[in-house]
Amino acid sequence: MRVKFSKMQGLGNDFVVIDLVTQTGRIRPERVRELSDRHFGIGFDQMLIVERPTRPDVDFRYRIYNADGSEVENCGNGARCFARFVNEQMLTGKRDIRVETANGIIELHLTSDGQVVVDMGQPILTPADIPMLAEQFMPEYHRHVPGIGDVRFGAVSMGNPHAVIRVNDVDSAPVHEWGPIIESCEYFPNRVNVGFMQVVNSHAIRLRVFERGSGETLACGTGACAAVVSGQLRGWLEPGVTVSLPGGQLNIDWDGKSSVRMTGPAVTVYDGRVNL
Amino acid sequence: MRVKFSKMQGLGNDFVVIDLVTQTGRIRPERVRELSDRHFGIGFDQMLIVERPTRPDVDFRYRIYNADGSEVENCGNGARCFARFVNEQMLTGKRDIRVETANGIIELHLTSDGQVVVDMGQPILTPADIPMLAEQFMPEYHRHVPGIGDVRFGAVSMGNPHAVIRVNDVDSAPVHEWGPIIESCEYFPNRVNVGFMQVVNSHAIRLRVFERGSGETLACGTGACAAVVSGQLRGWLEPGVTVSLPGGQLNIDWDGKSSVRMTGPAVTVYDGRVNL
Repeated sequence: MRVKFSKMQGLGNDFVVIDLVTQTGRIRPERVRELSDRHFGIGFDQMLIVERPTRPDVDFRYRIYNADGSEVENCGNGARCFARFVNEQMLTGKRDIRVETANGIIELHLTSDGQVVVDMGQPILTPADIPMLAEQFMPEYHRHVPGIGDVRFGAVSMGNPHAVIRVNDVDSAPVHEWGPIIESCEYFPNRVNVGFMQVVNSHAIRLRVFERGSGETLACGTGACAAVVSGQLRGWLEPGVTVSLPGGQLNIDWDGKSSVRMTGPAVTVYDGRVNL
Repeated sequence: MRVKFSKMQGLGNDFVVIDLVTQTGRIRPERVRELSDRHFGIGFDQMLIVERPTRPDVDFRYRIYNADGSEVENCGNGARCFARFVNEQMLTGKRDIRVETANGIIELHLTSDGQVVVDMGQPILTPADIPMLAEQFMPEYHRHVPGIGDVRFGAVSMGNPHAVIRVNDVDSAPVHEWGPIIESCEYFPNRVNVGFMQVVNSHAIRLRVFERGSGETLACGTGACAAVVSGQLRGWLEPGVTVSLPGGQLNIDWDGKSSVRMTGPAVTVYDGRVNL
C-alpha cells in the first residue's frame, strides 16, 4: 500500500516518519532495509512509526526501526522529530506530548520557536549500573589503557554508558584512534561510547562522540547529556550548557540532581509518498 | 516555491527528477548542494531538470546538476531515468524520445517492459582522440606501469577514456590498488577510467569500474560500453553482451562499426514535494 511520509532530520540524524494513526500499513523488516538504502531506497538512519496509544495516559505510541530492519530503543534526535511531526501533521494540538516507546514513556515539549525539549531522565553514576569496573563513584577516573597510556575520564550512563574525556581542541582530538580502543577497554564490560569534550566556557562546550558499534556520528543526544553531567560534576560547567556537535547545537540543562533536559531542533526536509 | 519531484535510480545511481515543463521553479546551485546531502537534504548523485525544448526537432531539453551544484554532461543512468520519468508523468506519449542536453542531442527508446535503450554513439579508438599516447590503434596494448609491472589493456573512448583490463575474477580484482595508479599513469594525458572485466562467456561479462576522480562506482554506463567494445575487438565477445555490474545488469549491443546501444532499467522509488 502507498503511504505518505515525511523526511526529517535532527542535527543530521535523519528519519522517515510515517503516520499510522490516520493511514493503514504494515511494516516489514525487509522493506525497511530496502527503503533505508541511500541509493536504491529513500535513505535514512531510522524509520519512526506513529501509532495510536495502547493505554489511556499517553497521546501516542511510537516505534523505531533501524536501517537494518530491527526494532530499537528511543533516540533523542528521533524523539524531537516525532514531536514536530505530530504537531505539523495536526495529529495533536498539545505542546506537551506523552508517548510510549519500547523503553518506556517519554515526555516531550514543543517550544514556541519550533525547538523540542526532551526529558532524558536522570544520569546514572553508580559504577555497577553504568556498568563500569570501579570500587565507588568518582567525578573523574584515572586509568591505564593499553595502547594509549594514562587516561582521565568521567563515566555516566544516560541509559547507555559514556566515557567523557576533556581535550584542548576537538578538531584535533584523537577520536578515531582512541575511540575504538576505549570503547572496548577492560573497564567497561558492555563497551562504552566515548566523548571528546572541549570546554569553551562554563556554559559552552564543543563535543565529538565515538558511538559504540557505529564510530563517530554527527550528533549523539545522550553523549551531549553525559558530557554536560560529567563537566558539571568535575566543576568545569554550570547548569545550562550549549553543546556544539558536528551536526549542530543542543542545549542541555541539568540542575545537578533531577532529569536532564535536552533542547534542540527538528526539521522537515520534504514530504513524499512511497509503497510500503 | 514548492515543487513535485520523483526520486529515481538506475543501477543504484540515483536522481531527483523535476518537471519544469508543467511546474515553474528556479534552480540555484547552493540549493542543489543542500538538497544533495544525504542526511540534511534529499540525497542524490544528480538532479535532472526536464524543460521545454529550445528547438523544434526535439521533445525536451534536460539539464543535469551534480551534487556540488555544477551543471554537467549527460550520463547513461540518468538518461534512462529521464525517459522513464517523461513517460510516467505523461509529459509525452512517445516511446522514441529525442532530447537536447549540454553535450548534444540524445535518442532514447522505451521498451515494452519498462527498460530504456540509449544510443551511446560510436566508440572512439584512435589513440590521439581517446586521448592515449600510442603510435597506432591496437586491440590490446602492453605497457609497463610503475608500481604494478606489465599490464595488458584495451583503450576505448565513449566520450570519456577507458582502459579495460581482463581479470579471472572481478571479486578479487585489484580495483582499489591498480585503479588509482592506472588512472594517473603516463599513457593517458587526461587520465582514464579503469575497467576490470571477467569474461563469463562470449555474451556475458562481469565488470567493476574505477571512475576517474570518483573511485569505484556501482554502475558506469560508458564503462560497460567500453568493456564490451574492447572485448569484441580482442576476440572474446560477440554482439549482444550482458554486463553484470555491482549495481545491476546492462545489455550492450554493438555491431562492430556503428553506435553502441545500451539497454537497462530505470526505477521510480518514491514521489515527493520540496521547496526549491
